[in-house]
Amino acid sequence: MLETTIAAIRAADEAAMAAARELHGRLTKPAGSLGALEELSVRLAGLAGVCPPPLPEPAAVAIFAGDHGVHAQGVSPWPQEVTAQMIGNFLAGGAVVNAFARQAGASVTVVDVGVATPLPTDPAVLDPAVLDPAVLDPAVLDPAVPRLVVASVRQGTRDLTVTAALTRDEALAAVQTGIRIADELIDAGAGILLTGDMGIGNTTPAAVLIAAFTGADPLDTTGRGTGVDDPTYAHKVAVVRAALARHTPDPADPLGVLAAVGGLEHAALAGLILGAAARRTPVLLDGVIAVSAALAAAAFAPAAVDAMVAGHRSAEPGATVALRHLGLDPLIDLGLRLGEGTGALLALPVVTGAVRVLHEVATFDSAGVAEK
Amino acid sequence: MLETTIAAIRAADEAAMAAARELHGRLTKPAGSLGALEELSVRLAGLAGVCPPPLPEPAAVAIFAGDHGVHAQGVSPWPQEVTAQMIGNFLAGGAVVNAFARQAGASVTVVDVGVATPLPTDPAVLDPAVLDPAVLDPAVLDPAVPRLVVASVRQGTRDLTVTAALTRDEALAAVQTGIRIADELIDAGAGILLTGDMGIGNTTPAAVLIAAFTGADPLDTTGRGTGVDDPTYAHKVAVVRAALARHTPDPADPLGVLAAVGGLEHAALAGLILGAAARRTPVLLDGVIAVSAALAAAAFAPAAVDAMVAGHRSAEPGATVALRHLGLDPLIDLGLRLGEGTGALLALPVVTGAVRVLHEVATFDSAGVAEK
Repeated sequence: MLETTIAAIRAADEAAMAAARELHGRLTKPAGSLGALEELSVRLAGLAGVCPPPLPEPAAVAIFAGDHGVHAQGVSPWPQEVTAQMIGNFLAGGAVVNAFARQAGASVTVVDVGVATPLPTDPAVLDPAVLDPAVLDPAVLDPAVPRLVVASVRQGTRDLTVTAALTRDEALAAVQTGIRIADELIDAGAGILLTGDMGIGNTTPAAVLIAAFTGADPLDTTGRGTGVDDPTYAHKVAVVRAALARHTPDPADPLGVLAAVGGLEHAALAGLILGAAARRTPVLLDGVIAVSAALAAAAFAPAAVDAMVAGHRSAEPGATVALRHLGLDPLIDLGLRLGEGTGALLALPVVTGAVRVLHEVATFDSAGVAEK
Repeated sequence: MLETTIAAIRAADEAAMAAARELHGRLTKPAGSLGALEELSVRLAGLAGVCPPPLPEPAAVAIFAGDHGVHAQGVSPWPQEVTAQMIGNFLAGGAVVNAFARQAGASVTVVDVGVATPLPTDPAVLDPAVLDPAVLDPAVLDPAVPRLVVASVRQGTRDLTVTAALTRDEALAAVQTGIRIADELIDAGAGILLTGDMGIGNTTPAAVLIAAFTGADPLDTTGRGTGVDDPTYAHKVAVVRAALARHTPDPADPLGVLAAVGGLEHAALAGLILGAAARRTPVLLDGVIAVSAALAAAAFAPAAVDAMVAGHRSAEPGATVALRHLGLDPLIDLGLRLGEGTGALLALPVVTGAVRVLHEVATFDSAGVAEK
C-alpha cells in the first residue's frame, strides 16, 4: 500500500501552472498585487492539473493521537492521561480545534493511533456510535459531529532513549493508517486535508525527526513545547541529542527513522500527507508535529511537497528549520504553539481565497477596466 | 459631529481585559499557546467593556473612493478613469474584494467621496436602485448585494504639489461622511467594520500623510503602489518630499494635515475609524491607505487605537512605518498591495477565531482535563 501510494505521486503540472500565471495577468488587479496568494494559487493549479484548480472544499481535519515512551524522561510538565482526556474534549466539541473547525466549516476526525491510557467512556462525552470506524458516508464530513476512529497500533511508543520507539512494522502500520484516512476523507468528498495532532510529549520525537532529516543541531530543533522551564528545556535538548547518538537515523530510510525516533501520530501524519499527494489533493500543514512528519513524507516521495501548504509558523523553533528544508513559506505567523490543527484552520480561508480569485474575479476585458 | 465623536472615544476597559486574561488561563490549552490571538481577544474585550466580547459579526467593508490632483504629476501608470471603472467592478461583484467578501460573509458598501470621472452608468453594471443612498435597512449588510453611496465632496482633490489638496471644510465633510457610514453600518447591526479604498494615485498622499504624522523620511514612507518603475519611483519620492516642504503639515492639527496633503478617501477612512471607536466597535485596517488614515484618527483621538486591529502588513513600506507608530502588529503578512479591503478580509477569520475561543472553548474543569 505504501509503495503503491508513493508510486502514484507525480510532479506538478507545468501547463496548469502556466495557465494560472497567465490568468492572473488578466484579472482586474495590478500584476503581483496579491503577493504570496498568487504563487499559492499557481501551485494548487499545478497540483490539480487544471486551471483554475477546484475550490478546496469541504475541508477535513484529521487529528492523529498517540503517546510517547519518552514521557518517562520528564520532557513534559503534563501527565500522559491528558492525551486521552483531550480526545474526549475533541469529541465533545470543547477544544480550540473544534471552535476553529466550526467557524471554517471543517469536519474533525480523531484517530487513535496509539494512546496509552483508556479513552474516556463517559457516555455524555463519548457516544459509542461514534466509536464505529466510520465508513464512506457523508456524515464523515459533517462539521457538527467530530468522529473517532480507533486504529491503535500499540499503547504508546517505547522510550526512544532506551530502544527504538517502534518496530518497522509498527511504523508502517501507522503510515498506512494515515494513507487510509486520507483516502476515506477524499472519497467522502474532502477537497483539502488539514493535519492535526495530540500527544503529550510529542514535540520531543518531532525535534529528533527534524534533526535527523535536516541535519540541524538539536538546539535549533528543540523548543519548549507546551511550556517547559529552563532546566527541563536543557534536559529535553540532551534527550534529543542522546536519541540521535543512539540510533544514528538514516534520512534515506524514512521508515527506519520513524521507527527509531518517531511517534505513531508522526508516522500516521506522514501517511496522510502521502495519501493526499497521491490523490492530488492539497494538505494544509499545522505546526511542528506536522512539519516533522512532512519531512518524512518528502523523504518517501520528494514530489509530495507539491501537495503541501504550510499553514503557519509554529513558535517551536524546529518548525522553522523544517519549513526551510521543505522550501515552504507559512501563511500565518502569530506565535501559535497549540497543535491540534489550529494553525492550519486559521490559514484555511487564505488558501480558499487564493483559489477563489481564479474562479470569481473579472478580467480587465470583461469588466471594462482600462490597463496601465 | 466630529467633536461629539471624538469626545465619545474612551480608553479600553481594564476590568474586561483582566477577565479575558483570567479566562484564557482556564481554557483547555497550554497558557499562551494561541500566541497573538490571546492578546487580540483581550484587546477586544477591553474595547467592548465585557468578557467575552461579542463575536465580530456581521462584518461590513466600507470602500471609500476618490481621485487625486497629484495624478497629473505622473505618480501612477494607471489612467484616472480606472477609479470609476473599478467602482463598476465592485458593484458588479467582479473585484477581488467581492470574492473575499462573499467568502467571509461580509457586506460591501462603496462610497464615492470624490471620484473625478463619471461613474459607470451601463445598467448592466450599475442598477440605478443601488445608487439610492441607502438608509437603515437590513439590506445594507447583505453580502450578496454591493451598495453604492454617493457622497462626493468634490471631483477629486487639487494637486498637492501646487496648492492644498482640500479646504478644511472639504476635509471635514469627508471625515464626517466616514463617521456617518460607521454609524449607519453599526446601526444596521455590523459587529466589525473593515476599511477599503479605491483611488488611482492614492499611495502618494498616503506617503505624505505617514511622513507628516510619524516624522519618517519620504524614502521610508513611499512605495511603488500598483507598480511604478525606477524613474517614476524616484519622481514619486521627490513629489512626497516637495509636498512636505511646501505645506509643512502640523501633526497636532490632523484636519489641517488631511486638507493640505490628504485625499478624500483618506479623510473619510479617518472618520470611519473614529466613528467605530466612538461606538466601541472594532475596525479592521487594510493596507497603506488605511494605516495612513489611522494615523490621522489617532491624532484626533489617541484612544481610537484601542478600536484598531491591523489586518495585514502591506508590501508598501509606509505601512510598516505607520503600524510601528501606532504600536500595532499585523495579523497577515503575505506581500499584498492591492487595497480595496482585501488584506482586512483575509484577516477577518483570525479576529473572529480569537474571540470565538473565549465563547466556545471548554475549561479544564468542565472538560475533565488535568492541568500540568
